Amino acid sequence: MPKTDDFLYQQLADKIELLIEKGVYAAGDKLPSVRELHQEHNISISTALQVYTQLEKRGWIAARERSGYYVQYTQRQRPQLPAITTPRAAITTVKVNEQMQRIHDGRQYKGFISLDAAAPANELFPLNKLHKALLHAVRSHKAAFVHYNDLNGYEPLRKHIARRTLSWKGAVNSSDIIITNGCMEAISLCLRAVAKAGDTIAIESPTFFGLLMTIESLGMKALEIPTDPVSGISLEKLEDAFRKKRVNACLFISNYNNPLGSCMPAAGKKALAQLLHKYQVPLIEDDTFGELHHGPERPATVKTFDKDGLVLHCSSFSKWLAPGYRLGWVIPGRYYTQVQQLKFMTTFSTGLLPQLAVHSYLEHQRPDLHLKQLRGALALQTQQMARAIQQYYPDDTQLSNPEGSFNLWVVCNKRTDTWELHRQAAAHNIGIMPGTLFTSQQKYKNCMRLSAALPWNEDLTRAVQTTGKLIRKML
Amino acid sequence: MPKTDDFLYQQLADKIELLIEKGVYAAGDKLPSVRELHQEHNISISTALQVYTQLEKRGWIAARERSGYYVQYTQRQRPQLPAITTPRAAITTVKVNEQMQRIHDGRQYKGFISLDAAAPANELFPLNKLHKALLHAVRSHKAAFVHYNDLNGYEPLRKHIARRTLSWKGAVNSSDIIITNGCMEAISLCLRAVAKAGDTIAIESPTFFGLLMTIESLGMKALEIPTDPVSGISLEKLEDAFRKKRVNACLFISNYNNPLGSCMPAAGKKALAQLLHKYQVPLIEDDTFGELHHGPERPATVKTFDKDGLVLHCSSFSKWLAPGYRLGWVIPGRYYTQVQQLKFMTTFSTGLLPQLAVHSYLEHQRPDLHLKQLRGALALQTQQMARAIQQYYPDDTQLSNPEGSFNLWVVCNKRTDTWELHRQAAAHNIGIMPGTLFTSQQKYKNCMRLSAALPWNEDLTRAVQTTGKLIRKML
Repeated sequence: MPKTDDFLYQQLADKIELLIEKGVYAAGDKLPSVRELHQEHNISISTALQVYTQLEKRGWIAARERSGYYVQYTQRQRPQLPAITTPRAAITTVKVNEQMQRIHDGRQYKGFISLDAAAPANELFPLNKLHKALLHAVRSHKAAFVHYNDLNGYEPLRKHIARRTLSWKGAVNSSDIIITNGCMEAISLCLRAVAKAGDTIAIESPTFFGLLMTIESLGMKALEIPTDPVSGISLEKLEDAFRKKRVNACLFISNYNNPLGSCMPAAGKKALAQLLHKYQVPLIEDDTFGELHHGPERPATVKTFDKDGLVLHCSSFSKWLAPGYRLGWVIPGRYYTQVQQLKFMTTFSTGLLPQLAVHSYLEHQRPDLHLKQLRGALALQTQQMARAIQQYYPDDTQLSNPEGSFNLWVVCNKRTDTWELHRQAAAHNIGIMPGTLFTSQQKYKNCMRLSAALPWNEDLTRAVQTTGKLIRKML
Repeated sequence: MPKTDDFLYQQLADKIELLIEKGVYAAGDKLPSVRELHQEHNISISTALQVYTQLEKRGWIAARERSGYYVQYTQRQRPQLPAITTPRAAITTVKVNEQMQRIHDGRQYKGFISLDAAAPANELFPLNKLHKALLHAVRSHKAAFVHYNDLNGYEPLRKHIARRTLSWKGAVNSSDIIITNGCMEAISLCLRAVAKAGDTIAIESPTFFGLLMTIESLGMKALEIPTDPVSGISLEKLEDAFRKKRVNACLFISNYNNPLGSCMPAAGKKALAQLLHKYQVPLIEDDTFGELHHGPERPATVKTFDKDGLVLHCSSFSKWLAPGYRLGWVIPGRYYTQVQQLKFMTTFSTGLLPQLAVHSYLEHQRPDLHLKQLRGALALQTQQMARAIQQYYPDDTQLSNPEGSFNLWVVCNKRTDTWELHRQAAAHNIGIMPGTLFTSQQKYKNCMRLSAALPWNEDLTRAVQTTGKLIRKML
């Protein structure tokens, strides 16, 4: 839910929502009529209608013909937050790749409903404006992008990226940045720059399988750090590992960890930066989701507090502008030369064409307006999915409550097997992501990641309902 | 020089060229007049004029006002071919990256003349048609390329690539191909798929520094195989290494090796494929230059003769269509799954936009006509550069005589130091590529790579002249 809102009707909708949540209006209760709302709150009839339309969309109320609006939501406690995770303090070999091959990819099936989409739906991206920007770039540069180009990436685009780091107080120049083929390449290059096969990488537990697979592919090992679904990794446990010299580098998604949703508070990030400094351990920071805060404020990054270049900051345009453009970047700090050379030795330069298009978009369109709308949509969708889970899943389900992005971490009853759920859901043409994909240990078998990346609709509601039934049947 | 030619005037030009080379016409001799040519050879006046224009372009003759055409070329022996190389039969640690940092990159200086351009000049690419294709792709797909797409690459493009493999008798399906971010990524992924840090890769000696740097970055070692500037690596020495179990994988540029220009005959490739089979050693085949044959026939590849999927065939559009698009591909044979997974773990999918543009180009334009023109241009340029070297470099210079692509391998007098030449040439705003970049051993200090990738002009002639003077001064 967005924490502030410019629109009158949304403010009022928020208030009524609160009243329903608190039970002031219970399921089945009739709400004030549109006319009453209009008179009591001194708003126009159309605004009053918008309030109820909004609450209907959010799933709280339903209109009954010629009778008015009623609370339809069956009041239940919001699921409990999962506790801080408790991975073993053991260095482990990562083996996620093999599991990944078992994932049912239903994209090719008509009517497949993904409860785990990897990026916002196309309709949430500024397609027309990006298209305009692309055409502008193509027309004005014509042949420039046909030939080899700047190995570090298109300088004017790097300048824009540098400027945008101001939102997290990063004092970065365009010459500090290297453009990559998506954030995955950035992370892969950083890992190779700071560690070698056999080295140990400290990671959040759970963490994104893409990171685990990259670690696996490089023959590195993992040390999973206990992670709280709100505040992120345990600094105490991390320092403990540092003290025992067990860690060669860290790889954290500091903002809205995928899948857990945790976002370390600024004070924690500052303390983490100090720890890195004290023990001289590099951190690869994946800030892919940093722009997708539901509230009004862009969270800080660990890089914000990095004084000696130990943080290699990675991000991309994939989650808010154009996943298929495969454009990411890295601010490698003191590892700049190593990363630059590895980039040269791995994929050479990044294609100029998408860089020109994104640059033209940032320069001539209104990225911040788009981001604002996207954040609002993701906040709403996340809330809608959480509500559906609350409604249809067993009472003992635990659920994260992320303040950004669109990933939800669902912890089911211990007896639930989410790989079995994955199998059964696939037979219903529904996709979910089992929890064991997010760890290098034998953990999270009863957990899964769901993603609220798609605009909410009845198909999604039904898919949540169906998976809820399957879970109950399993018990 | 193209070996056959559709055009009457080029056939006649070739004949006259031969007469000059054989000394029938010597420097200063007057050639038959245009009218005589017209009468004797039963060709039109305009065709006769074209013959002499062509020979002028090739640098053999010059027109004197109101007098006719004269042989201007000072007849000298074509430089000797370099002998087969003789690297030590030692497994070596690769250290090229550091040297690479010393290369003077003059691209930013106005008036800089590169005698070592990495790809054909923009004007040799079909810019307008590619532009048209790009616009067509952008308009007809609009939003499709914004989202994540097929991990293996755009299927219709893979189909085109599969069809094109017919030219080297590759029986390949689109599902055998994975699109990559240029050939460099393909090779990097293949190396990781078939070998690990510490393993030994057999390579040509000399070979492209990009390959050496990729081996270096992955912590692998190199075993350089003696390589003949015409017929490629010594199969005998390779089998010797196989027999001693010293090689984990091979990485060869089988067609027009960069920098040596060697092209293994089909029989050699067949024998190589049999060796790979006998000893079960995989080969990563870099066929980047395969399309750039000067003669009429597309050379075979080792993959042509590969019966059990041991050849991982890599190529790209970088050298004949659009270097800046960063589009390559790999046909990984029996290593398909490993390469696919590594791709996923390294850069995820390849951007769709350039794939759509190239697909539209291949589908709606005439790539084979363009290739024909490009081959002719590169053949001519290579000949022009060779002639300038012949004219301005010391008599004891050895020079490769490649039948494809645009790289020339220049072996100077033993006392020449091409790093010193590089330094001195840079002061004259001229770029060359020192020979030590192309080996993991202490070799090729008196060698360099020059590239005839740019349309020949007076600046290039002067640059060859200048470097020739610098070499003479050094002795």
